[in-house]
Amino acid sequence: MKTHKTRGVGLLGCGTVGAALVALLAERADVIEARTGLRLEIVRVAVRDTARDRGLGLDPSVFTDDPAAVIADPGVDLVVEVMGGVEPTRRYVLDALDAGKPVVTANKELIAAAGAELFAAAETAGVDLLFEAAVAGGIPLVRPLRESLLGEPISRVMGIVNGTTNFILTKMTEEGAPYAEVLAEAQALGYAEADPAADVEGLDAAAKCAIIASIAFGVEVTSAQVPAEGITAVRAVDIRFAARKGYVIKLLAVAERLADGAVSARVHPVLVPETHPLAAVRDSFNAVFVEGAAVGQLMFYGRGAGGGPTASAVLGDLVDAGVNQARGHHATVGTLRPAVVAPPDQLTSEYYISLGVTDRPGVLATVAGVFGDHGVSILSMEQEEPDPDDGAPRPQLLFITHAAADRDVRATLDALAELDVVERVGSVMRVLGED
Amino acid sequence: MKTHKTRGVGLLGCGTVGAALVALLAERADVIEARTGLRLEIVRVAVRDTARDRGLGLDPSVFTDDPAAVIADPGVDLVVEVMGGVEPTRRYVLDALDAGKPVVTANKELIAAAGAELFAAAETAGVDLLFEAAVAGGIPLVRPLRESLLGEPISRVMGIVNGTTNFILTKMTEEGAPYAEVLAEAQALGYAEADPAADVEGLDAAAKCAIIASIAFGVEVTSAQVPAEGITAVRAVDIRFAARKGYVIKLLAVAERLADGAVSARVHPVLVPETHPLAAVRDSFNAVFVEGAAVGQLMFYGRGAGGGPTASAVLGDLVDAGVNQARGHHATVGTLRPAVVAPPDQLTSEYYISLGVTDRPGVLATVAGVFGDHGVSILSMEQEEPDPDDGAPRPQLLFITHAAADRDVRATLDALAELDVVERVGSVMRVLGED
Repeated sequence: MKTHKTRGVGLLGCGTVGAALVALLAERADVIEARTGLRLEIVRVAVRDTARDRGLGLDPSVFTDDPAAVIADPGVDLVVEVMGGVEPTRRYVLDALDAGKPVVTANKELIAAAGAELFAAAETAGVDLLFEAAVAGGIPLVRPLRESLLGEPISRVMGIVNGTTNFILTKMTEEGAPYAEVLAEAQALGYAEADPAADVEGLDAAAKCAIIASIAFGVEVTSAQVPAEGITAVRAVDIRFAARKGYVIKLLAVAERLADGAVSARVHPVLVPETHPLAAVRDSFNAVFVEGAAVGQLMFYGRGAGGGPTASAVLGDLVDAGVNQARGHHATVGTLRPAVVAPPDQLTSEYYISLGVTDRPGVLATVAGVFGDHGVSILSMEQEEPDPDDGAPRPQLLFITHAAADRDVRATLDALAELDVVERVGSVMRVLGED
Repeated sequence: MKTHKTRGVGLLGCGTVGAALVALLAERADVIEARTGLRLEIVRVAVRDTARDRGLGLDPSVFTDDPAAVIADPGVDLVVEVMGGVEPTRRYVLDALDAGKPVVTANKELIAAAGAELFAAAETAGVDLLFEAAVAGGIPLVRPLRESLLGEPISRVMGIVNGTTNFILTKMTEEGAPYAEVLAEAQALGYAEADPAADVEGLDAAAKCAIIASIAFGVEVTSAQVPAEGITAVRAVDIRFAARKGYVIKLLAVAERLADGAVSARVHPVLVPETHPLAAVRDSFNAVFVEGAAVGQLMFYGRGAGGGPTASAVLGDLVDAGVNQARGHHATVGTLRPAVVAPPDQLTSEYYISLGVTDRPGVLATVAGVFGDHGVSILSMEQEEPDPDDGAPRPQLLFITHAAADRDVRATLDALAELDVVERVGSVMRVLGED
């Protein structure tokens, strides 16, 4: 029975997350009502196949195959979007907001592609658009960034925001196994998809990076502005060398505010010092590391995907949206300013570089000379024997540089590639300095 | 100039945290105004010595030595309590709430001792009592627990919530140094106080544990109900043995909901598996690990103390309190139910136990027999040579048990102490099982 305290919830989509949300809400509705005075009740659900029995304990009459019917239903006060994709989802979300209905979404592609438009529509309508689950699944991150840290000048956010790649890198690190073998294992276990490109090429992480940069710095950054490099080129030799030097290789989404006010947002593998908290984030867990001027270092760790964790974040947002609606106001990310996105060559970093070289005396002197000519200073060097199984048919020289400008490192690599003694420029990865 | 959008802030106390808050607010007031429409302005500050120049850029006329004058000042809309202590602070906070003024506090002793009374007073007055900074300094924890995880059935929270003891244990672990030496170093560095009892005996952590249990489970738990065991008895041999077995010793505040609905809250050293995220929390950092049925494992990491981090958390709360006040509502922890606090002997755990024994054949058989007689099963055992410098003049037997009921372990220890061959029952610590 719908009382004056009841808020009708309409779901767009009812896959893994939607089903987990229905179950979690059934379990927690009493606690939520006791705490907030609101009874959340799922009254309408748009699915592709209305005939299928989902075993969710919902009355069959709530199902429809028409998302527009959910939005238009006068009994629906709050809309949850868990159907995924950018189109036509964007249109449905805009329609819901235009109809004055708050929307909770777990859809990172949508927010990363059309966040500014959607936030503006929500502001215009004066209703909530909440997306805690879109960034790091069950990890509370958006709310702390938006509310707890409103008083905090944030300088940098670095995240392990893709569970599949972190699982693969963890296995490679702890078992010494090559990339292809671990990927196949991850696929067999269901941790990686048959087409793993979105994960292993860093595209999923780039979408999350765009959202993180937007909310951390209040600027409009889209996925398309985030250069992404994945983990497909990470070899066992890189991981072994990193370990000997006290580093763990992680795929990081990095959003930082530069001295000139520009924002840099990017995804790439990084050698992380083994004493850094991000280095201890194992398996398919996610974590987001935040640095602020006053608060110092913070890290938020947890499950970045999966039905339960995502549903938990969606339900937290749903309660918020219901309470805000009852009180006649709404949360806001503020107006996003256009971002000045810094090109990567403005950055400075320590670097790890591997070179396949000919087995001949004097090679190191020649190579070291090229580094020196470009003002790039070498911190450490090791020679590694050829390992054809790991994509290295030649002896390898493995370097870690001191901090150097990206453009100088690129110029060094171009010059090295011209050398007769350099057969191949292998891995080139940034190294996270100890702060 | 005070406009209609300005909220006057009154400070009770202006030590390290208060001064950091004044500076941070000066820096962030414009951003906060842009985001919330509110101008936060410090208009009155109670200090002991009004003559001292604090170099904070505040008009000398704002200072008073009378906290009651701050509360009564009609220009003060919001009160920040950073004076510390339980009395007379409790009285001032109650007076502010009774006067309808929201209070933000960083005072863990106060909340842990009188939380239920203060929350009730805030509810009655219909204003905020916010205390993010009281639990884990700059780490956003109270807000995520109260809001993001409202939809989440939380089963257990484990925290490294005292920076001093974590610093000491980290040094002992990484440098192999004995407790007394590291404590002296920590005191010289200012990480530990001249009288370190509140930290090293676990009392500070117990206060935070009481607050965590209260907000995680919605029950009323005070410091006095939290049995605390500190780190004063942790020896180098314990740390070495733990390391060989793949564990790191950490002082944990543990709050958990038992199967019968009772709550257990306690502070003691624990052998944490080195692959667990809490094991990677080094130096004086804090972290709180949360386990929920849907969300799985979460961890919040950062600075648990210090002016900047604490001021950052206070400012986040202050913005919240200002916004809530402008909108005419307030946050709530809900009504805390009386807690059924489980006595420790109802718990089950794996245990680490060290025994000083006589150097005689057959000792192990005798000792092992006692374990067996009490139904406590041994997972692993090692013998260690005497180390008088480390408080172990006799050979030592070091055990890890399988999970056993606390009462069976206590009975085993009592029986072992009776044996002629056991000179001394040394360390007894819980071991965190892999889940």
